[in-house]
Amino acid sequence: MARLVMKFGGTSVGSVERIQNVARLVAREVDAGNEVAVVVSAMAGETDRLVALVEDMRSGANTSSHDESEYDAVVATGEQVSSGLLSIALQVMGYRARSWNGWQIPIRTSDVHGSARIDDIDAESLGTSLSEGNIGVVTGFQGVTENGRIATLGRGGSDTSAVALAAALRADRCDIYTDVDGVYTSDPRIVQKAHKLDRISYEEMLELASLGAKVLQTRSVEMAMVHQVPMRVLNSMGDPDDPKNGTLVCDEDDVVESIMVSGVTYSRDEARINLLRVTDQPGIASKIFGLLADANINVDMIVQNVSRSATQTNMTFTVRESDLARALELLEARQEEIGCEEITSDDHVVKLSVVGVGMRSHAGVASTMFAALAEKGINIDVISTSEIKISVLIDEQYTELALRTLHTAFGLDATEQ
Amino acid sequence: MARLVMKFGGTSVGSVERIQNVARLVAREVDAGNEVAVVVSAMAGETDRLVALVEDMRSGANTSSHDESEYDAVVATGEQVSSGLLSIALQVMGYRARSWNGWQIPIRTSDVHGSARIDDIDAESLGTSLSEGNIGVVTGFQGVTENGRIATLGRGGSDTSAVALAAALRADRCDIYTDVDGVYTSDPRIVQKAHKLDRISYEEMLELASLGAKVLQTRSVEMAMVHQVPMRVLNSMGDPDDPKNGTLVCDEDDVVESIMVSGVTYSRDEARINLLRVTDQPGIASKIFGLLADANINVDMIVQNVSRSATQTNMTFTVRESDLARALELLEARQEEIGCEEITSDDHVVKLSVVGVGMRSHAGVASTMFAALAEKGINIDVISTSEIKISVLIDEQYTELALRTLHTAFGLDATEQ
Repeated sequence: MARLVMKFGGTSVGSVERIQNVARLVAREVDAGNEVAVVVSAMAGETDRLVALVEDMRSGANTSSHDESEYDAVVATGEQVSSGLLSIALQVMGYRARSWNGWQIPIRTSDVHGSARIDDIDAESLGTSLSEGNIGVVTGFQGVTENGRIATLGRGGSDTSAVALAAALRADRCDIYTDVDGVYTSDPRIVQKAHKLDRISYEEMLELASLGAKVLQTRSVEMAMVHQVPMRVLNSMGDPDDPKNGTLVCDEDDVVESIMVSGVTYSRDEARINLLRVTDQPGIASKIFGLLADANINVDMIVQNVSRSATQTNMTFTVRESDLARALELLEARQEEIGCEEITSDDHVVKLSVVGVGMRSHAGVASTMFAALAEKGINIDVISTSEIKISVLIDEQYTELALRTLHTAFGLDATEQ
Repeated sequence: MARLVMKFGGTSVGSVERIQNVARLVAREVDAGNEVAVVVSAMAGETDRLVALVEDMRSGANTSSHDESEYDAVVATGEQVSSGLLSIALQVMGYRARSWNGWQIPIRTSDVHGSARIDDIDAESLGTSLSEGNIGVVTGFQGVTENGRIATLGRGGSDTSAVALAAALRADRCDIYTDVDGVYTSDPRIVQKAHKLDRISYEEMLELASLGAKVLQTRSVEMAMVHQVPMRVLNSMGDPDDPKNGTLVCDEDDVVESIMVSGVTYSRDEARINLLRVTDQPGIASKIFGLLADANINVDMIVQNVSRSATQTNMTFTVRESDLARALELLEARQEEIGCEEITSDDHVVKLSVVGVGMRSHAGVASTMFAALAEKGINIDVISTSEIKISVLIDEQYTELALRTLHTAFGLDATEQ
């Protein structure tokens, strides 16, 4: 017997029929003798409907009057509905189930409404209820603040709810049911030879998640890593017993295959800014990036070119594409102060990354990557590296070619089985 | 300065624009220096949508698997949304407002899910918040059980929430905003000369409410009477300062006009059952009515005719029209045991009632009533009376004529002003 947390997203609970399908998946685990807590998102479309109501109510109003706690009070109802409905579906099938809202457990959060963090989960009542043979159906995405107000974790927060709950319940595993079969070596829509990984380490998954693979929310993987909760990603429309369904995200030591690179990923939400002929004086970088940080603009890759003159340098960095206009506006307003002669930008760029814990012990990943791209005539703009990742910025027209080239170069192409 | 509870039903909060209208009505009272708690229903149609989801989920299932606590968890979200949205609307107008769910106050209820009763309201936190100048926007229709589950009061329960909250907050008045101008002497769609009452006693309102005037929920009037909370019924689309808008429901002593009859009302949801030639033996009545009570069928008016023979009697009584088929089935199955030769029924009947605390001191109400009906050739089937009410059962084709006749006979017709 094991204790499991199963998490289902909005598409999986998007209709009465789909909720009944979820109930059958839950019942299977219960029939196998497991204790099960289920975490659900709002029915697909419901959160959007509620957010639209809030926005209609605020339209034309000054943003200073916005109280995010009321946004949360409205939007959190979506999960309340789906948890109640799934409980009913399980009861109709003859199982004992009850819904738990965040405040009923309680899942205690910070008071940053709209993007709260889980501080603590008191899993005693829920744990007792599970031990007594009840299925617990928990609202994802939300908790309660110290002041007793409802707070939401921000969109996608249900994955984090599930992992945090699994940690608090000392669950043996957290299964994240979604609409894909698992984690792939690359985007299968582009790289036809991409194959599903059976296992991947937390660290690799973290890099893949933050690099644009949308299968899991970054915070949930971080939390799973910290609390050493094994996570399984699998397709809610597939057979949970099929070994082809699902990827286990677990400790590095438990990943049996020892490969250099686990995945090749990309992110299109990138834009490059060049500050040309910046006066090279101490503190200039902190002035530029301080300015952007104050405006909540995240800077990712940074390169300071070797100066051609002793007094001037070129600086290149990337921001999210959606932040580009705002960043340029800020920089141009302070151009004189920064002491930069020209500002250029390009949003037709893409960031390509290879990720793998194997890089720690294998030299030559970078040279393999650069050589493979060079052979196809793909120019590299900017490079950034971390312990288990190498990213390069390239012209977006080469996205597909570069992905396929690297996938082959690192031996990831699926072989006929 | 006064402390007020204002209650708005589903139609009044049925859209973003209507919620903004409600916010303006609340703001007026705050601008006048009052402390205000607002009780809201779900947006019109929302409760129906949620109930349909629950019913879809249960369709085809055995009723024994129904857990009303999950019905409540789902359906209670409707009020949570409207209280959040109204709080935002008030904030956008520059007022300090916050939403309160039943469990946040808390409003403690019994655990009869779907039709819970309010046991107790701990109004301390809410009261403090009001004293500090905040508007409290409270979810109607719901509370929390001792076990920490959400419970709803049954449909229409928001009136009761508002009055109970007014009692707990020691409010000076509870204003029920609705889609009519107040309480009328009769149904204005039938009796064109019906006029709105400026004041009416709790007792009279209670009789009118339970007799089919749908303007207020019976339990809310009972609670207002017990706690001596003055209630005002008024139109949310009208001007709250217009003396033509609204009826105050208050203590009998505060009703200045001393009139014999305050209103004439009717109920079409009636059916008559005749048990003919019943063997007249001790305990027969309790056998018949016990049978119906066990099946949750409410019996209203009862008449036992004078027997033509010494051993047989005829018995006539009324049930709700929707219960008629079930009642007949039960009685026919036990006809032999009851010892009754024939069972007949008629659902083309209507119950007409005149209500007034003045009856206590004025004789002759019954004779005025019977004479007025006789003069128009309207036959009276069954009569029942209480201290402040006389009801008669008549053929439904005379409904309009009878209502207008009695309205005139008791001097209720509006005079040109």
